[in-house]
Amino acid sequence: MSGNTLGTLFTVTTFGESHGPAIGCVVDGCPPGMALAESDIQPELDRRKPGTSRHVTQRREEDRVQILSGVHEGLTTGTPIALLIANEDQRSKDYAKIARSFRPGHADYTYLQKYGLRDPRGGGRSSARLTAPAVAAGAIAKKWLRVRFGVTIRGHLTQLGPNVIAFESWEYVDTNPFFAANRTMVPALEAFMDRLRKSGDSCGARLAVVAAGAPPGWGEPLYGRLDADLAQALMGINAVKGVEIGAGFAAVSQLGTEHSDEMSPEGFLSNHAGGILGGISTGQDIVAAIAIKPTSSIRLARRTVDVEGHPAAIETHGRHDPCVGIRATPIAEAFMALVLADHALRHRAQNADVDCATPRIPAAAATVPGKLASPLEDPDPQEA
Amino acid sequence: MSGNTLGTLFTVTTFGESHGPAIGCVVDGCPPGMALAESDIQPELDRRKPGTSRHVTQRREEDRVQILSGVHEGLTTGTPIALLIANEDQRSKDYAKIARSFRPGHADYTYLQKYGLRDPRGGGRSSARLTAPAVAAGAIAKKWLRVRFGVTIRGHLTQLGPNVIAFESWEYVDTNPFFAANRTMVPALEAFMDRLRKSGDSCGARLAVVAAGAPPGWGEPLYGRLDADLAQALMGINAVKGVEIGAGFAAVSQLGTEHSDEMSPEGFLSNHAGGILGGISTGQDIVAAIAIKPTSSIRLARRTVDVEGHPAAIETHGRHDPCVGIRATPIAEAFMALVLADHALRHRAQNADVDCATPRIPAAAATVPGKLASPLEDPDPQEA
Amino acid sequence: MSGNTLGTLFTVTTFGESHGPAIGCVVDGCPPGMALAESDIQPELDRRKPGTSRHVTQRREEDRVQILSGVHEGLTTGTPIALLIANEDQRSKDYAKIARSFRPGHADYTYLQKYGLRDPRGGGRSSARLTAPAVAAGAIAKKWLRVRFGVTIRGHLTQLGPNVIAFESWEYVDTNPFFAANRTMVPALEAFMDRLRKSGDSCGARLAVVAAGAPPGWGEPLYGRLDADLAQALMGINAVKGVEIGAGFAAVSQLGTEHSDEMSPEGFLSNHAGGILGGISTGQDIVAAIAIKPTSSIRLARRTVDVEGHPAAIETHGRHDPCVGIRATPIAEAFMALVLADHALRHRAQNADVDCATPRIPAAAATVPGKLASPLEDPDPQEA
Amino acid sequence: MSGNTLGTLFTVTTFGESHGPAIGCVVDGCPPGMALAESDIQPELDRRKPGTSRHVTQRREEDRVQILSGVHEGLTTGTPIALLIANEDQRSKDYAKIARSFRPGHADYTYLQKYGLRDPRGGGRSSARLTAPAVAAGAIAKKWLRVRFGVTIRGHLTQLGPNVIAFESWEYVDTNPFFAANRTMVPALEAFMDRLRKSGDSCGARLAVVAAGAPPGWGEPLYGRLDADLAQALMGINAVKGVEIGAGFAAVSQLGTEHSDEMSPEGFLSNHAGGILGGISTGQDIVAAIAIKPTSSIRLARRTVDVEGHPAAIETHGRHDPCVGIRATPIAEAFMALVLADHALRHRAQNADVDCATPRIPAAAATVPGKLASPLEDPDPQEA
Repeated sequence: MSGNTLGTLFTVTTFGESHGPAIGCVVDGCPPGMALAESDIQPELDRRKPGTSRHVTQRREEDRVQILSGVHEGLTTGTPIALLIANEDQRSKDYAKIARSFRPGHADYTYLQKYGLRDPRGGGRSSARLTAPAVAAGAIAKKWLRVRFGVTIRGHLTQLGPNVIAFESWEYVDTNPFFAANRTMVPALEAFMDRLRKSGDSCGARLAVVAAGAPPGWGEPLYGRLDADLAQALMGINAVKGVEIGAGFAAVSQLGTEHSDEMSPEGFLSNHAGGILGGISTGQDIVAAIAIKPTSSIRLARRTVDVEGHPAAIETHGRHDPCVGIRATPIAEAFMALVLADHALRHRAQNADVDCATPRIPAAAATVPGKLASPLEDPDPQEA
Repeated sequence: MSGNTLGTLFTVTTFGESHGPAIGCVVDGCPPGMALAESDIQPELDRRKPGTSRHVTQRREEDRVQILSGVHEGLTTGTPIALLIANEDQRSKDYAKIARSFRPGHADYTYLQKYGLRDPRGGGRSSARLTAPAVAAGAIAKKWLRVRFGVTIRGHLTQLGPNVIAFESWEYVDTNPFFAANRTMVPALEAFMDRLRKSGDSCGARLAVVAAGAPPGWGEPLYGRLDADLAQALMGINAVKGVEIGAGFAAVSQLGTEHSDEMSPEGFLSNHAGGILGGISTGQDIVAAIAIKPTSSIRLARRTVDVEGHPAAIETHGRHDPCVGIRATPIAEAFMALVLADHALRHRAQNADVDCATPRIPAAAATVPGKLASPLEDPDPQEA
Repeated sequence: MSGNTLGTLFTVTTFGESHGPAIGCVVDGCPPGMALAESDIQPELDRRKPGTSRHVTQRREEDRVQILSGVHEGLTTGTPIALLIANEDQRSKDYAKIARSFRPGHADYTYLQKYGLRDPRGGGRSSARLTAPAVAAGAIAKKWLRVRFGVTIRGHLTQLGPNVIAFESWEYVDTNPFFAANRTMVPALEAFMDRLRKSGDSCGARLAVVAAGAPPGWGEPLYGRLDADLAQALMGINAVKGVEIGAGFAAVSQLGTEHSDEMSPEGFLSNHAGGILGGISTGQDIVAAIAIKPTSSIRLARRTVDVEGHPAAIETHGRHDPCVGIRATPIAEAFMALVLADHALRHRAQNADVDCATPRIPAAAATVPGKLASPLEDPDPQEA
Repeated sequence: MSGNTLGTLFTVTTFGESHGPAIGCVVDGCPPGMALAESDIQPELDRRKPGTSRHVTQRREEDRVQILSGVHEGLTTGTPIALLIANEDQRSKDYAKIARSFRPGHADYTYLQKYGLRDPRGGGRSSARLTAPAVAAGAIAKKWLRVRFGVTIRGHLTQLGPNVIAFESWEYVDTNPFFAANRTMVPALEAFMDRLRKSGDSCGARLAVVAAGAPPGWGEPLYGRLDADLAQALMGINAVKGVEIGAGFAAVSQLGTEHSDEMSPEGFLSNHAGGILGGISTGQDIVAAIAIKPTSSIRLARRTVDVEGHPAAIETHGRHDPCVGIRATPIAEAFMALVLADHALRHRAQNADVDCATPRIPAAAATVPGKLASPLEDPDPQEA
């Protein structure tokens, strides 16, 4: 399958560039009979859209989504759902001068080497703007997972530059511009961002995504594992440089007695696995974390070369997010939703008739999603 | 495509279980006309095979590979290459008692929930033994990348439990049982492993894989990005819980002026990107790191439940690696090779006619592969 | 891959329904650097569009195509090309009364059984209107095949109901409303169609598609054979009930000495194979034929059942083609182009480095495309 | 996906060449929990295997199948099922002299042009011997369709060279060496084959395959239509030159009132559609027919060229079927089974929750499978 489609059965094929007439996608494989309207999708786009606070890019995009197909009398028909988002704020003149040199950290050089030409307006196809259609598609997946399986997918920012953000409560996530599950730190984060913006530099971020309510059994070993497909989807988000499932890199220095999650009739006693064992969901929370690099477009001068290979300096004065990670939470949620919906379909394709006599183990009682490196304190530590 | 195939054009489909008669794979899409014999593949299997030191499992498997098809008079024909590896040491009695309860950290519970039944002998399909066919397939990909593009792919262990292993030189990697690019620390690592083995517990590991010599242009944005596909392949290896490209999670606390790699006519000035920008290779070293969880099969008693859901205790006395990460280096190399070979084919499918007038920027002069969190010290740090 | 995408590397994903706001598609994998504008695509849509003669449906659709992405400054960029066609003439009231019963020969019953609901307006997704996006996508494939390889793809009607249409010359195809490569028979065909239309009934058709200029080597045995993929693409066109390659069903009663095409230094001596041997192109003309069933929507009363399963009668008074085969020639050409473009990419992915020392055999001097059952008279019949 | 895999969810990946050590396949996606042993597969291979009568090739191959994986304690586990068939009768010396020239009608020339080299022993990968693994895989699909849905798939020869074979009864199919559903004609067919064999020439054949018992709803419009995927699978069988669904090419000269199948509360009144409307199964018999070209390997001298392009003559004295169509019936059944199993999985992936309030229309009472060109006489002809 060509490079712009994600998924096997629940698929999304995106199109568009930052400054073309429109961006959008085709969602294929959505089950029929689900109520769907633009109003199911728009809130997710609104969470992602630029211009919602002074800490993100001031580009003005309404990001109004239009459903072109696949819905009849308010219900999905099982046929492809095409979604269209017009590009409104296309100040292409901003980008004229960068057409002839390569912005460090951007895809300018690699696109030119690959294709022999590139659309320099706003990064063209490589712009983070192209996450909008995926968020729209993810909203459909999210809804289906919720109404069909009771799955909820939520994310929150766990680190902003050097600032680690403790998890306090999910209810705070939508009350601040950072998607922080924390109320206490918000003023400090705002001050940090104000200083950063003034400095002209940018910073990275880390965030967590958690799916609650997924049944055991989703995932296709080997190689369509649930963790592998999550890694692909999440690493495919612009600016992501690392992906963890459950304990992630903290597992390196754990002992076996610490890491592997014991079980009891009351449920798993911890969730270092992040809800996935052998590539298949356990029924616990599915927990992933991603690292997002600092925005590459910054006001400070950077050394580079031009298209003839001569030395050049470049500074970027367009409207850019000083931390692209801030708006990444709804994006990561969308990609997790797309992967889970795909695997829900794949699982029942093969295993719809499985009648498992084995009782399902309840999920662990308490998962602390903010502490992803050690998602659950083991109530009875091992003697090892 | 179903769950046991990796890749789009250069594909590997594996089969087999830990204690069945044989394991193997079908490699499809390999270009024709390349010299290929079992002797090209066997050395990679030998690097991975059990029983080579006291620090790994003592299961005895010769892992002799047989080419069943796709090669005529010593040359690949372009048709599927089937590889067969007989299972020799199948002490299935070892596993009889674990058939009725779930080993913590293993896929026992998830396979049963997914399929309604499972092969308990040695973990069945979920055994790390199933990485052997992938290593064999990867040997073919590695050879093709080397003879066609001059690409070399090498890995090394960067952390063993709590022990961080500094990169000293590639030449040390094959001189110790740990794939450590370091000579100094080997005695300490051996002592650590002896203590660990005696304790009955297990530990995690971290390792790095580096591909040198890949040209710019490989990768299919969005969503078949090179980094995304690497993440999928590497996260799909048994026991992997995290994947990083380039700076990885260290990017979270970097500034934009630190992270994004500047360019000069002499080349990139650093490689925090890990050789990939916008999902496409830059021509620099492609650098990935993975986190491997501690072995779940340990001698110490663990709480679990049996297939009726009653409480149980389990301890595992089979032959197991106290650190599965030790043998993971050739495995990670193989998966990187498979992904790169696939993308080499995909790239030239679409872009064989691209004649890029833009000069290629040389790769950075010095990449220190052991320091993946900051792969290259910037010779002229930014003022930000 | 989900059900609305065709192709492996050069892919087209369509969306839309007969009476929704728009139909369209996303073309992915097109090589970069090719000049492309709406004016390259519109002529193919104009050949297919309704209302061009009294012999086809009088529905009014301008079928203006708009390129939404993938083209920058007049050149393809290698990123997805989204094409949009607005639906203009949506007289949905015409269809209100057929929503509750099943039209014989249509997909009404099967869509309802599959999805549990259906869009009855104009057949919804199953309307032949959905061939328009494929024709648009095919225009891009056609252009690339022409400029890159010199391939030309042409089709013509070889039978209209009981009327077999002899091949006279390609130049006549666009001079009559039937895509007949014949001038002599046109008045008789017009009279036949007038009588048919007056009767309220409909008829079937047969047509041939020929690609000239394709090099040997395209096709992926087994199972991505060129003939197999052509069969899939052509059988996937609405109303197609049969596909032949080369001699097709005439091969059943041929002898081996008749059918298999001999070779000489001057070229193949015949082309019963239709340009494909072992699933791979020979370099000769690639020749396919399809059978198209009579239009199911007719004015005459038909017995059926309603959605409660009660007996009903139905007659269709919308605007329908009395022979859907008449407008099928550009559609079949488009699908052949899409398959060939896909295989051109797939071939060079694996075999770009093949340097075949064997001289290419020239294609046969004379192929008579109208006589597909025996495409070339053997100049020197066998003695067997 | 690369070229040697068939299917999306229920997939088969084959490997091997006519004269290598072994041929085989990997079947992926088979649902778990089904009883499976070699004895379920062997009978289908025995129906296909050479040497069973004087009318087929005398090559001696036992074609014993071995299950290497995917079955535990007699039940499928849901993991890949690898099947191995050793090649026994490899008289490669027979083929030494044909290595340097191209056999007309064979893939010798096209493989060489595509890959730059070829395995000339017995046709290598392009040998019809490679249908054996597909027959083995198809046996698994057949069993699953039968035990899960009550689907039965049967084929029969409808024409042998010029001899049209009327359908008398399914019970005769396994009582003669031709898979003819006819007892009366067998002596004439034997005499015809004896004359043909003596002449040194070969002939074509036509056969029909019918699946009974499939529910409505299987098929993925557009483009994974059930008819399209059947066409791909059947056209992909060696020597097939044409595929028909239902009325097939006879639809060309039918009127709409003849072709489209009316419905009544008692069921469809005919089955010209061949059980598929809009790419989706209707619940009636699924009926396909294929044309098989005459064997290309014949004893009579044929003109060709050698690998330097010089004129040559070739006659083939190996052990060949004078009509490859004779053994094709189990092959065609296998491919239909593979396609249906794949679509059964795909359908329930998306539509498992569909609760269709509409009553299912019974299948037509009487389908005469031998008369595929007009599968059912309409009991009450239309007035049109």
